[in-house]
Amino acid sequence: MVGVITGRMNIAYAQSGGPTAVINRTMMGVVDAALMSGRANHIFAAKHGPKGLIENRFVDLARITGFQRENVANAPGQALGSYRKEPTDEEAATIVCNLQRHDIRALLYNGGDDSARAAAIIQAAAASSRYELQVFHVPKTIDADLLANDHTPGYPSAARFLATAMSWIDCDNRSLPGVYIAVTMGKNAGFLVASTALARNPEYEDSSPHLIYMPERLFDEEQFVHDVKRVYGQFGRCVVAVSEGIGKLVDGKFTELVVALGKSLGGDGFGGLTLSGTISLADALVGIVKEGIEGVRVRGGTFGYEQRVAAGAVSPIDRVEAYDVGRYGVYAAGLADGGSKNIGSCGVSWPDWTSLSGRTTEGGSVVIVQRPMNELVNGTPEQYSATLNLVPLDVVAPPKAKGLPLKKFMPPEFISPNGTDVTPAFFKYAGPLVGDIERFGRLELPEVGPDEK
Amino acid sequence: MVGVITGRMNIAYAQSGGPTAVINRTMMGVVDAALMSGRANHIFAAKHGPKGLIENRFVDLARITGFQRENVANAPGQALGSYRKEPTDEEAATIVCNLQRHDIRALLYNGGDDSARAAAIIQAAAASSRYELQVFHVPKTIDADLLANDHTPGYPSAARFLATAMSWIDCDNRSLPGVYIAVTMGKNAGFLVASTALARNPEYEDSSPHLIYMPERLFDEEQFVHDVKRVYGQFGRCVVAVSEGIGKLVDGKFTELVVALGKSLGGDGFGGLTLSGTISLADALVGIVKEGIEGVRVRGGTFGYEQRVAAGAVSPIDRVEAYDVGRYGVYAAGLADGGSKNIGSCGVSWPDWTSLSGRTTEGGSVVIVQRPMNELVNGTPEQYSATLNLVPLDVVAPPKAKGLPLKKFMPPEFISPNGTDVTPAFFKYAGPLVGDIERFGRLELPEVGPDEK
Repeated sequence: MVGVITGRMNIAYAQSGGPTAVINRTMMGVVDAALMSGRANHIFAAKHGPKGLIENRFVDLARITGFQRENVANAPGQALGSYRKEPTDEEAATIVCNLQRHDIRALLYNGGDDSARAAAIIQAAAASSRYELQVFHVPKTIDADLLANDHTPGYPSAARFLATAMSWIDCDNRSLPGVYIAVTMGKNAGFLVASTALARNPEYEDSSPHLIYMPERLFDEEQFVHDVKRVYGQFGRCVVAVSEGIGKLVDGKFTELVVALGKSLGGDGFGGLTLSGTISLADALVGIVKEGIEGVRVRGGTFGYEQRVAAGAVSPIDRVEAYDVGRYGVYAAGLADGGSKNIGSCGVSWPDWTSLSGRTTEGGSVVIVQRPMNELVNGTPEQYSATLNLVPLDVVAPPKAKGLPLKKFMPPEFISPNGTDVTPAFFKYAGPLVGDIERFGRLELPEVGPDEK
Repeated sequence: MVGVITGRMNIAYAQSGGPTAVINRTMMGVVDAALMSGRANHIFAAKHGPKGLIENRFVDLARITGFQRENVANAPGQALGSYRKEPTDEEAATIVCNLQRHDIRALLYNGGDDSARAAAIIQAAAASSRYELQVFHVPKTIDADLLANDHTPGYPSAARFLATAMSWIDCDNRSLPGVYIAVTMGKNAGFLVASTALARNPEYEDSSPHLIYMPERLFDEEQFVHDVKRVYGQFGRCVVAVSEGIGKLVDGKFTELVVALGKSLGGDGFGGLTLSGTISLADALVGIVKEGIEGVRVRGGTFGYEQRVAAGAVSPIDRVEAYDVGRYGVYAAGLADGGSKNIGSCGVSWPDWTSLSGRTTEGGSVVIVQRPMNELVNGTPEQYSATLNLVPLDVVAPPKAKGLPLKKFMPPEFISPNGTDVTPAFFKYAGPLVGDIERFGRLELPEVGPDEK
């Protein structure tokens, strides 16, 4: 336990893991809350996350100007630079030492579950060297698979990009009918690929995507060809969305499909060539359909990094929530005090904020509280509003040694019984996060007679 | 030669080839000009282009309602459906017969060079059966490689999508530095991949894409690895944009790179697997870099169909020009008469429109007139404005038997001497078409001292 700091103090902030479209909004939330509290001396921001923490390389966000802010507030990716690294115990000790050199009393670590784990390691290192430090994890990941979170900042915008692009691709596929297979990110969980369902225009029965393959269900090539054949037979076309993480059991173990297919060909992959995961997956699936269905035009595409940094597709709710998780972290550190009213931004509720004010804590993880599943399954949709809370770090990031699940999966309530679609509960879950998508109508004029003049 | 038709008449319209984001704007241009002329009885629109022409399946666009218009005017892809087919002489005779059944005196055929060739075949069939028919080709292709055209409707928006996505990817690559290889469409010409250069923020020397590979230059794996190494050495990161059409000489013949690489491995491709072109290209290039440069993070991505139907990235100029080439086709058919003033839409000039009014013609191809190269190379940029004109069909689509080039290539004036970048002339060419791209600034705060408190 650490004491309450009442005067001015220094805090630190770091960005880690994969880029998102809104992580710099979180940085701005940290900066604004800290500066407005009047109690932040310096806001030391590590360059390239854990790398800067270890190498003692910081800039001071308290010196940010309006111009600088304009430059980066809406820029995708990490303006401070990122890095993927779980600090070793030795590195964690170095980090604590560096934080001490700058008299930093609170560290806000912004990232996914690996970052939450890194935060816990740093917290432990501080405790063992008896340095009074609060470490907070602030959530971010496009995959929405962080434990104890309803979703995470970054997900709504990536999902919005995918749903938007898929609504365009539906028009493409109707123009030149055939089979189109689109591979999305989401190695562990299906939230991203599932979001492509929002592209559908409910006015039309044949609106795509027609089939959605999530990593939560085992993939079977025969069933896949059967599914595509059925849709193609029904609509004369078929659009498929597939998560890069789909796989099957090989020797009783979940194995990514590209790897599994490589093995089934004998050897270490496709003729000895190195596989680079997702890209080959589209190829492999196109090949499977071509082999299984004669004479059909089949094409595949793999969404690249643009999906995780789609600044042009930021969801209105993501923009606000990303900002607020950063602000909430600063309030949790006891730096700011909102008085007696809910000081969450419009659409974000901070029910427990008063208990955070000046609290004594070793830190924790800021979470977007999960909406009750029974409301998503049975309830009527209400005005969406996020609720923030602070939970212990190990709730979000259990130590790997414990053998607990490290990430969230799509709950079964979101997956249709046949395993190739989502349920109405998923639409209630993802709809408000992603926001309205531009969907397109059709030209529905009657055909003229053969000799009409 | 056909006579001038002075009363009300029926016209036909067909959409063909690959989808674009703005081809339905062209349809609306045709509809608006025809309806406003007061001289169009029916606007027979073929379902799925050549397929509908052959099978005598039409709808009447003269019956379009405001609601229908709202549905499709901004929808990407072909609202009427498309098809890829060059009619045989027999099919062309059937088409002429079908047009005759509907008393259609002018056909507007909207597509790329294959469509212009189809238009010429139909025109010839009409002449040989002595049916008075004007056939007009109206341009469309995202590749901008149509002969006699400065560019084509569809290109500016596809280019805008690519430049926008690449400006996001630059932020991603700065967050987590490494090598990223993005493959774009453009099998024949480099205009699309070149447009990624517009993503660069000229304020920063290391702004990406750093290397651009166009099909107009032969690809050399060794030089490629050398180029990537040099950029990575200089900036600690490297973003590469590659056209799907790059290739090399195999037995003295230009061969697409994926095919060439497959051959060099012996056999008919990668271990007997069917290649699906563009997708494998990213994989192959990632493999080449990984092999050539040790310990560098290399990823690849292939833009899918979203790039050609990116309704969210329509360029303002593309929107207007796509509309106007459709209107111009109707005026060229002698249906409408604009009086004595330039009746081109804002930003589009119709210098020869008066000569079109009521003209006697067998048809032709609507073109966006090429800007003089010396102005692009040496001139100062003026206010951009497109100029439309009508040229004989075989100027845009020479008969294949003649052995002439069927498509346009990037002129050498647009390609940098080292072959991996574009010139200032290209920026002058593409800049106004694509319009302003959102580019992102950086956080440029000084690093703090190691013990600053």
